[in-house]
Amino acid sequence: MIQASICTIGDEILIGQVIDTNSSRIATALEEAGIRVTRMLSIGDNREEILSNLRNELEINDIVITTGGLGPTKDDITKGVLAELSGSKGYVENPEQLAIVQQILHSRGLDMLEINRAQALVPDRCEVIPNRLGTAPVMVFRFPEDTFGATLFALPGVPFEAIGALPSVMEDIRAHYPLDHILHHSVMVYGIAESALSELIAPWEDALPKDMHLAYLPNPVTGIRLRLSIYGGEEAEQKARVQEQLKGLEALLGELVYSDGDDTLQATVGRLLKAIGKTVSTAESCTGGMISHLITSVPGASAYYLGSVISYAVSVKKNVLGIPAETIQTAGVVSSTVAAAMAEGVRRTIGTDYAVSTTGLAGPDGDEFNPVGTVWIGVAGPNGTKTVKKIFKNDRKRNIERFAASALDELRKMIISDLK
Amino acid sequence: MIQASICTIGDEILIGQVIDTNSSRIATALEEAGIRVTRMLSIGDNREEILSNLRNELEINDIVITTGGLGPTKDDITKGVLAELSGSKGYVENPEQLAIVQQILHSRGLDMLEINRAQALVPDRCEVIPNRLGTAPVMVFRFPEDTFGATLFALPGVPFEAIGALPSVMEDIRAHYPLDHILHHSVMVYGIAESALSELIAPWEDALPKDMHLAYLPNPVTGIRLRLSIYGGEEAEQKARVQEQLKGLEALLGELVYSDGDDTLQATVGRLLKAIGKTVSTAESCTGGMISHLITSVPGASAYYLGSVISYAVSVKKNVLGIPAETIQTAGVVSSTVAAAMAEGVRRTIGTDYAVSTTGLAGPDGDEFNPVGTVWIGVAGPNGTKTVKKIFKNDRKRNIERFAASALDELRKMIISDLK
Repeated sequence: MIQASICTIGDEILIGQVIDTNSSRIATALEEAGIRVTRMLSIGDNREEILSNLRNELEINDIVITTGGLGPTKDDITKGVLAELSGSKGYVENPEQLAIVQQILHSRGLDMLEINRAQALVPDRCEVIPNRLGTAPVMVFRFPEDTFGATLFALPGVPFEAIGALPSVMEDIRAHYPLDHILHHSVMVYGIAESALSELIAPWEDALPKDMHLAYLPNPVTGIRLRLSIYGGEEAEQKARVQEQLKGLEALLGELVYSDGDDTLQATVGRLLKAIGKTVSTAESCTGGMISHLITSVPGASAYYLGSVISYAVSVKKNVLGIPAETIQTAGVVSSTVAAAMAEGVRRTIGTDYAVSTTGLAGPDGDEFNPVGTVWIGVAGPNGTKTVKKIFKNDRKRNIERFAASALDELRKMIISDLK
Repeated sequence: MIQASICTIGDEILIGQVIDTNSSRIATALEEAGIRVTRMLSIGDNREEILSNLRNELEINDIVITTGGLGPTKDDITKGVLAELSGSKGYVENPEQLAIVQQILHSRGLDMLEINRAQALVPDRCEVIPNRLGTAPVMVFRFPEDTFGATLFALPGVPFEAIGALPSVMEDIRAHYPLDHILHHSVMVYGIAESALSELIAPWEDALPKDMHLAYLPNPVTGIRLRLSIYGGEEAEQKARVQEQLKGLEALLGELVYSDGDDTLQATVGRLLKAIGKTVSTAESCTGGMISHLITSVPGASAYYLGSVISYAVSVKKNVLGIPAETIQTAGVVSSTVAAAMAEGVRRTIGTDYAVSTTGLAGPDGDEFNPVGTVWIGVAGPNGTKTVKKIFKNDRKRNIERFAASALDELRKMIISDLK
């Protein structure tokens, strides 16, 4: 199997100023092409460290992809170090990249300075993949068998330039390396703890063939992603074998599976609503707009989402959602009755098919009746209203996220049950 | 200078399914304590690779911090590998962590399974920092001088658990390593590009004493954090000297500074409203609840935040916010007129002193009148209404975040102007 390593170069990552998102995107592209990423590393703008780390990565791997350190300023030293590493005798001007640099400066109304012209200079031992999105080209160093027998691709660090260059880099890799296929398939699960899930599917997991691998990827908001991977082999056969295994898994898990794929809860709910041509609204108290934010984070949400009332104060529950003051006083704000009245109130006020509500205590404090982390969720639909109580034990931020995810899951379950 | 390395363990990072945010947060904490991070790396759930990489990092560094691979499932092998690396003879049950595991399961209404109990087992050669946020404790391995002469901290991979454990880890590091005192003071700036800010404060920055260092920490949502650091010396004197310099900086920047400290925009707005005893509501279209979510993410927001109307559909703008159909038809949904009417409508409907609104196009598509990334922000208050148009050039997620941050900043500016 072809092995690769990804290396980001730049002090700004090591001091925590910038989160490295390039590596993840590059890793995804490599994985999809059937290349195993053995390691990712981030190092500083320091000659000795760049040299020793890259030598090490080139020894171990077939492909090394670096990002960063190619800017025009003094702290960017990657190009010089790569010239040294590759035994280049000097620099040559790349006419294609020079034309791009000229064009970029022109479009910004700037004159070409020496520092800009130098961006088109590359070590004489590399090939160039022009970068149309910025001034620094991608440099390709092919180290022969008697040195490392590996290829190094040096990409710019600016994320949209690095990601923009990826298709050309992958094309170059495909042209030079024979590639196996890896197939990953995810199933999204909500409403069960990782340990209980593990116990539940243990017999199935233990019976998996040796060339398949299961990973648990838990996320407190989206639930648990179960990823089944199969290495090597022919794609159609891989798919069929994975599908066969997933049938067994889904039979065990039933309604706990909310997506056969990578969808989020909000995308799943959106897909269901779109498919049946129904609409939704939310009435949120303790989640303060989080459910609405999640729903509208999905492009095209306007096809099924009309709006929400965030009734943080009791006055809004009364005046906008039309819940009688006596109801709130008798049942208490955090109650099944109020959750139901909120969902029904917003469903009526905004005029949707479904509505989901939350009333609870995200923290930091509980009240005299309920501990912090308590939420009542209401879901109202064409066939009636249901309420569910949940108690989480997290901090405010995490409680809000979990309340919102649970509410989306309850909505999902009502829609599915209505479809039956 | 004490040197550290950060290592994330988990296949999910190497295949690009998860972006590693822990390393950046840990790096920030180390850097602020005056510890140099030499390298970050990500490796897979593979015994040989974990062993060889950790040995190497322990040779080179004083401190190694790992995250991940401590879950209860079979693919998480870090604990076993650390037992091997440290020469542990077996496992011991940590009673404190066991009690936490019990408590977590109890609070979720779950029974203790063998797999849960195993989470409280740790190699006999490590010390434990209990993890109150999850089931896997932090393990501290102190390798004596005759092996690596270094300390390894193994943190869970779930971000809020890893970050939650950081203060205890830093406390342990301070107790065992001699660290200089570094004083950092931040000032939060919104509404100016980094290059323009740099030009504006250049004379002040150039005149800084040699033992002070200014860092620009830009964030597309919260603006730019300017962090002034002073290395070594006595704390009271450090504080006085930093305060003196900041006076000059704040004089240059005026209203661009929204917080003398680390506050977010939403916390700043909350602090202002609380101080003057006024309330706020929001009417959101393209931000879909994000402003409301940000405001309510601040504990105690109920003191000044009453609620919102998310008027995603035109019908909600008409029926709930009371904006006449003709107004919307004449001016267009994405317009100054509608932004103003939304802010005024929600201020009236919910009955608050201030109200802020957004109407725009977050993406992926623009419309025939406005490019994607266009937003009209409305702010209504006791002294009238103002509207502002902004155009951002990002993807949907980022546009929503920037629209919301801009809206909060406009609200902040109106409150400040009313206070004058």
